[in-house]
Amino acid sequence: MIDLHAVRRDTPACYRQVFLDSAGSSLPPVGVLDEVIGHLHREAEIGGYRAANERLDDLEAGYGVFAELLGCEPDEVAFTDSATRSWLSAFDAVPLAEGDRVLVTEAEYHSNAIALLRRAADTGATVEPVPSDSVGALDVQALREMLDERVKLVSLVHVPTNGGLVNPVLEVAAAAHEVGALVLLDACQSIGQLPVRADELGVDIISGTGRKWLRGPRGTGMLVVRRAALERLHPRMVDAGTWHAPDKISLRDDARVFELWETGVAERLGLIAAARYALRLGVDAIASAVTDRADRLRAGLSGVDGVTVRDLGERRCGIVTFTVDGVDAEHVRDTLVSKGITVTVSRRGSTVLDMTRRGLHEVVRASPHYFVDDEQLDACVAEVAALRS
Amino acid sequence: MIDLHAVRRDTPACYRQVFLDSAGSSLPPVGVLDEVIGHLHREAEIGGYRAANERLDDLEAGYGVFAELLGCEPDEVAFTDSATRSWLSAFDAVPLAEGDRVLVTEAEYHSNAIALLRRAADTGATVEPVPSDSVGALDVQALREMLDERVKLVSLVHVPTNGGLVNPVLEVAAAAHEVGALVLLDACQSIGQLPVRADELGVDIISGTGRKWLRGPRGTGMLVVRRAALERLHPRMVDAGTWHAPDKISLRDDARVFELWETGVAERLGLIAAARYALRLGVDAIASAVTDRADRLRAGLSGVDGVTVRDLGERRCGIVTFTVDGVDAEHVRDTLVSKGITVTVSRRGSTVLDMTRRGLHEVVRASPHYFVDDEQLDACVAEVAALRS
Repeated sequence: MIDLHAVRRDTPACYRQVFLDSAGSSLPPVGVLDEVIGHLHREAEIGGYRAANERLDDLEAGYGVFAELLGCEPDEVAFTDSATRSWLSAFDAVPLAEGDRVLVTEAEYHSNAIALLRRAADTGATVEPVPSDSVGALDVQALREMLDERVKLVSLVHVPTNGGLVNPVLEVAAAAHEVGALVLLDACQSIGQLPVRADELGVDIISGTGRKWLRGPRGTGMLVVRRAALERLHPRMVDAGTWHAPDKISLRDDARVFELWETGVAERLGLIAAARYALRLGVDAIASAVTDRADRLRAGLSGVDGVTVRDLGERRCGIVTFTVDGVDAEHVRDTLVSKGITVTVSRRGSTVLDMTRRGLHEVVRASPHYFVDDEQLDACVAEVAALRS
Repeated sequence: MIDLHAVRRDTPACYRQVFLDSAGSSLPPVGVLDEVIGHLHREAEIGGYRAANERLDDLEAGYGVFAELLGCEPDEVAFTDSATRSWLSAFDAVPLAEGDRVLVTEAEYHSNAIALLRRAADTGATVEPVPSDSVGALDVQALREMLDERVKLVSLVHVPTNGGLVNPVLEVAAAAHEVGALVLLDACQSIGQLPVRADELGVDIISGTGRKWLRGPRGTGMLVVRRAALERLHPRMVDAGTWHAPDKISLRDDARVFELWETGVAERLGLIAAARYALRLGVDAIASAVTDRADRLRAGLSGVDGVTVRDLGERRCGIVTFTVDGVDAEHVRDTLVSKGITVTVSRRGSTVLDMTRRGLHEVVRASPHYFVDDEQLDACVAEVAALRS
C-alpha cells in the first residue's frame, strides 16, 4: 500500500494543484530534485570531472538499481538522454535488409514511426501494423498469422501515449520468438507505473524514460538489452569502446555500448534516485494505486453527460483519455489548467495508425500518479462537467 | 578586455582553488547555474511540459544566440546532449559507399575514431590520416596532395584534446571544397575559448559542447549544419518530422532535423545563458585572455628543470600539456589536486594517432580559463617545480 500522506509530503507542489500529467513529465519527489541540484552545485564548486569522480560508486550502483527495477542483469542496462534515444539506438542496431519485415502495434509512437519508415525506405524492409482486437489491444492471434521467418523485429508499445490500455507482452514475445524475431518493448509509458520486468515479460529489449511515471529528471532515458539479444545486434553510431591502434577498435560487449561517454551526471544521479524511490514504495503498490486513481477518474468522467472516455483494452493503466462533445480538446485543457488542473492533449500526429483507425483527431489526456488524492480527481470531474453546463 | 574581477565574482569557486580544467568540464558562471536550477524548481512546481511552455520564446531565441556566436543562421543550429552526439549525428548522415575516402587529422578524437572506423568497416570507405607538418599541425600541402574526388569528408579537429595547437581551418576548408568534400569541424575544444564562425572559417558542419570552454551545463552539445551542406546529408535515426499517414513521413528541412524532440530543458536554458555570457564578454576578448594565461603557464613550466611542455603548432590556445621527467602524469595530477590545483591527464587512447606518432603515453593537461589569475598560474608552476625537488 502507498502511504498517501507520505508521498504527498515528498511532492510539495501536489497540494497546490491537481497534477494529472505524469504521462507527460511528472513532478519529482524532493529527494530526486535535491540529488540533481546538489550535484550541479558540486560541479560548480570543483568542476564536472572531479564532481563525477566523487560519485563513481553511486553511478555504477545505478545499473544494479535499474536491473532490480527492470528484471535483468546490471550489464544489460544502459542509460541515455531520452526514451527515443534508447529506442532509436537499439532499433538502429537491428540488422535489416531488403525483404525483412518489422511488425508494429497500431499504438506505435511518432518518434519510432519516423525512424521505422525512414529505415524501411533505406533498406527495403517493410513495416506492417498488427491489427488490434475487438477491445483495441494488439491482436495476438492476428500477430501469429503474420509471423514468419522474415520478421526480424516486433516493435511493441506497452502502453500507448494516447490511451489507458496495456498491451499483452508475454504472449507477443513468445509468439515472436518462435520465428526468431527480436522483441523491442517501448515501455516509455509503463516504467514507473506498472511492473516492467524483462525476465518476466520475456522481451529482448526495453526502452524507457525517466521523466514520466518514474518521476526522474528530463533528459534521461534507459535501455535494457538482454545478453542473447546483444549478440544479434550491430551497434553503429557509438563511442563506447577502445581505440587500440590507428585502424583497430573494439566495442564494449555489454549494453553500455549504447551509452555515449559524455552525459549529464546530475540528471543521471536524479534518475537513479527516482528508481530507488519507486523500489522503496514497491512497484506493485504503485501500480495498484495508479490504477485505482485512473479507474476513479474514468468512472467519474463516464458519468458526465457528453463526455466520452476513449481508453481501449481490457487491462487498463494510469492514462485516462476523453473527449467532450462540442468542446475542443485544447479548450478543455486550457480551461482545466486555468482551474489549477494540469492535463494535456494527445493529437493524431503522435499515434497516426491508432487515431486514424478510430477516426479521432485529438483527445484530452489525464494521467494521475499515486500522489493525487480522491478529492483532486473528483475536482477534475466537476470541472469537466462544468464545461458542459 | 576581460574584467578579471567581474568574471571572478561570477565564479565564486575560483577563489578557493586553482581551476585548470576548462578543457574538461569548466566552472559555470553563477547566472548559468541559477538558470538551470531555477528551471528545475519550476518543473517540480508545475511539471516539465508546462514549465517548458513558459520558456518557449527563450528556447527559440537560443538558436539566434548560437547563430551569432557561431557565424551562421538560426535555422542552421541544432542542440544535442553532447559534442559526440552532434558529431556522430552529422557524420552518420554523410553518404559513404565503398571506395569513398574520409580524411582525418592526426589529432582525431577517440569518439569520432570509433564511429569512423566502425562505419568504414561497414561501408568499405577508407579513413586516412593527413600527416602533420613540422610543428605538428595538419599539413595543408599534404592534404592537397591527398585530395581527390573520392574524398567525401574531411574531419578536422580544431583544437586537439591533448595539446595547445590550433589547426588551420580556412585553408583546409578551401582545399577540401575544391574536390567537393564536406568539411566537418570538431570544435569541442575551441568553442568558448576561440572565435569559431562557420561563415569566416568556411566549414560545412561544426560540432561542439556546452560544458568546456563555454562554461555551460554537462549534457549539452550543439551542431551547425550550413544549408547547402544539409541538402547533401541523409539524416537517419531522427524523429524531427511529421507522420502524415500510416506510411508517409517527412523530415524537418533545417538543422533541427538532428534534434530529438525530448530533451533536458533546464540544461538547454543553461547552455543558452552560457552563450549569452560569452557574447557579452566578447569572443575576441575571451580568446586574448585565455591565450595570455596559457602562454604564461607554458613559459613558467618551460623554466622548470625536468618539465617538458608538449604543445605543438605555431598558433596556440588555452590547453597546456606537459610531462615531468620521472613522475607519472597521474601522480602529478593527484599531487596538484591535493594542493587545490585541478588539472587532468590526457591518455594515448583519446588521441591514438597523435600520441603514437609522438611516442607519448600520457600528458598532464592544464587548461586555464579567463577567470584564473596570474598568481594562481604561478602557484601551479611552483607546485610542479616542487615535485622535482
